Formats: sequence, structure tokens, C-alpha cells
Amino acid sequence: MAASDDCRLDLIKSLVRAFPDFPKKGIIFRDICPILKSPEALSAVISLFEQHVREKFQKVDLVVGLDARGFLFGPLLAQRLGVGFVLVRKKGKLPGATVSVAYDLEYGKAEAEIQEDAVSPGQKVILIDDLLATGGTLYAACALMQQQRAEVLGCLVVMELKDLNGADKLKPHHVHSLLQY
Amino acid sequence: MAASDDCRLDLIKSLVRAFPDFPKKGIIFRDICPILKSPEALSAVISLFEQHVREKFQKVDLVVGLDARGFLFGPLLAQRLGVGFVLVRKKGKLPGATVSVAYDLEYGKAEAEIQEDAVSPGQKVILIDDLLATGGTLYAACALMQQQRAEVLGCLVVMELKDLNGADKLKPHHVHSLLQY
Repeated sequence: MAASDDCRLDLIKSLVRAFPDFPKKGIIFRDICPILKSPEALSAVISLFEQHVREKFQKVDLVVGLDARGFLFGPLLAQRLGVGFVLVRKKGKLPGATVSVAYDLEYGKAEAEIQEDAVSPGQKVILIDDLLATGGTLYAACALMQQQRAEVLGCLVVMELKDLNGADKLKPHHVHSLLQY
Repeated sequence: MAASDDCRLDLIKSLVRAFPDFPKKGIIFRDICPILKSPEALSAVISLFEQHVREKFQKVDLVVGLDARGFLFGPLLAQRLGVGFVLVRKKGKLPGATVSVAYDLEYGKAEAEIQEDAVSPGQKVILIDDLLATGGTLYAACALMQQQRAEVLGCLVVMELKDLNGADKLKPHHVHSLLQY
């Protein structure tokens, strides 16, 4: 890792705030709002993601972002890479023909949905979200991609909660996180 | 309006899809997913927003985006302007001390919330969302900004449903939409 990576990571890390017992008792919520509020930190997040993608993958067709905090980073990364952005939404939010997959959340249950024509067979996609906890949402999003016969290159997240073993759940998919807790 | 504006608007308009009776009977849902999927169209949206802001306002401190589709455009505009991005979320999603305002949706009811320290008194903010319908969500967001004594410069939306008179509801705040239906 280059020194400039460290500076960018230090900046990002310095801005994440921890809130114990939110949204439920026993959960420490890592708040990324201060990253978004700092143009330098947000740019650092996207440039670190971009660098990783360019070093690791020869060709990317689409960035796929998860509702709602994946929407904060996904379009920025997609624009930097010069590719399109696709939305994975909570069930019932997308019009037209859709496909969906149910999953367990860190706290609760939900269903992830995409438009049927969102991705084409053979397209190489990068998934993006703010947080990897148990990996339920990203696992569902990967399943949606595979159902549509797109190729998942990997998953990018700003933060990874190591103790919850989300990366194991997502195997054999590649996972890259900027910060680990 | 310059010819290049027209080209960009034509591109954006050509990609919006209409879905009748979604999510409820009688509502025509305007789908912006194809705009996000086109890097050229997404860039056009942001450059039109940026151009409008630079022509209209001398100084902007923050871009404030509405959950969830405002998150798709807000961070991109904030980065172009070199300013921070603040999240207005549905109630219960943000940790720490928050302030909230209730509002009526085009179909339903909800509460908009920000972190108490998200904006400071006197800061000049631009609000952004995908759609102006009845204006309930943006009205609540403006109220939140005023409650925190921030100055609302104006509201930017990709699409405006003219028949629903959302811009009237938001008066005296400035509203700028790229597409009108």
C-alpha cells in the first residue's frame, strides 16, 4: 500500500463516528455521514475504489449499488470508470418487470429487487454498498446478478465488520473494504 | 438556453420511461433507471445542474439530498461543486441527535429527518431529489433546513410533475427542474 493510500484512509477513518445501541441494543452503528460532508474524504473513497478496480479488473461493464447508502457511492464510482449504474432496491420500489431475492438483514428481513433488463448475460459487474455486516444484502444482490447471468467481479464496501464474517458468506466472490472493524 | 443544453436535455428525456399504474392505480411512474445506466446521460444531468447552480448562486456551502433517489445525484453534484453532501433520511435511519418533520407523500405519509449537526446556521444549501410531485418531501426538507437556520438557495429535481403544483407549495423557494411533465 502506498503512502498516499494511507493518507486517504486515515482521513476517511478519522471521520467515521460510532453510535452504540443504534438502531438496536448491542449494535454499534458506524456513521459515514461526516465522510459525505467532506468533499476531500468522499473523493478519497471514490479514488481508492477506482484504483482498486483498475488494478484488479481489466474490464467493468456496470456498477451495481444497493439501496440506499450504496446509491451515495455507486454513481460516483460509475462516472469515474465511465460505465453505467444499476440500482438494487428494496422490493416494490422499481417499476416494470423485476426479479427479486429474499434475505436476512443484520437486524430484520427484506427482499432485494432489480429490473429484469437491468443487466445482460455476460456483463461484468461491481457491487457497491457502504457496509458489509453479515453480508445478507450483498449475497442477495450477487444472487440477483447470477440469476440474470451477469458476472460478479467483486463487492466494494467502505466498511467491513470483520466479526460477522460477511466476506465468508460472499465467497467465492471477491470483497474489498476500505475500513475494517 | 444554448443548443448544447438542448442536446443534453434531449438525451435525458429520451431515456425516461413511463409506467402507468405504478406503484398505485392512476399514477404514472417516470423511471430514471435508464439515465443512471447511461454514463453520458448521468453526466449530462449533473453538468446541467452544475451549470444552473453556478449561473444562479455565488456561493453554495452544501448539497442536501433526499432519501433515496436524491442520493443518486446529490453526491455527484456536491463533488462537482467542491462542497459537502448532507443526507435527509426517512425517520429512524440516522444515528445520534436528530430533528424531523412529518409530511404527506404523493401516495402515503412519512417523516424526514436530519442529524442535528448536519447543517449550521447561515449555511447556504441546495436541495436535490429526482422528482418534484406534490412537493411534500422537499417542503419537509426545506422546513428542516429553516429549523436549523440554514439558508435554502433552491431545490433541484430531474423531473417535475407540473399538474401537481409542487413548485407553488415550495414558494418562495427557487425550484429548477430539467424535465417537465
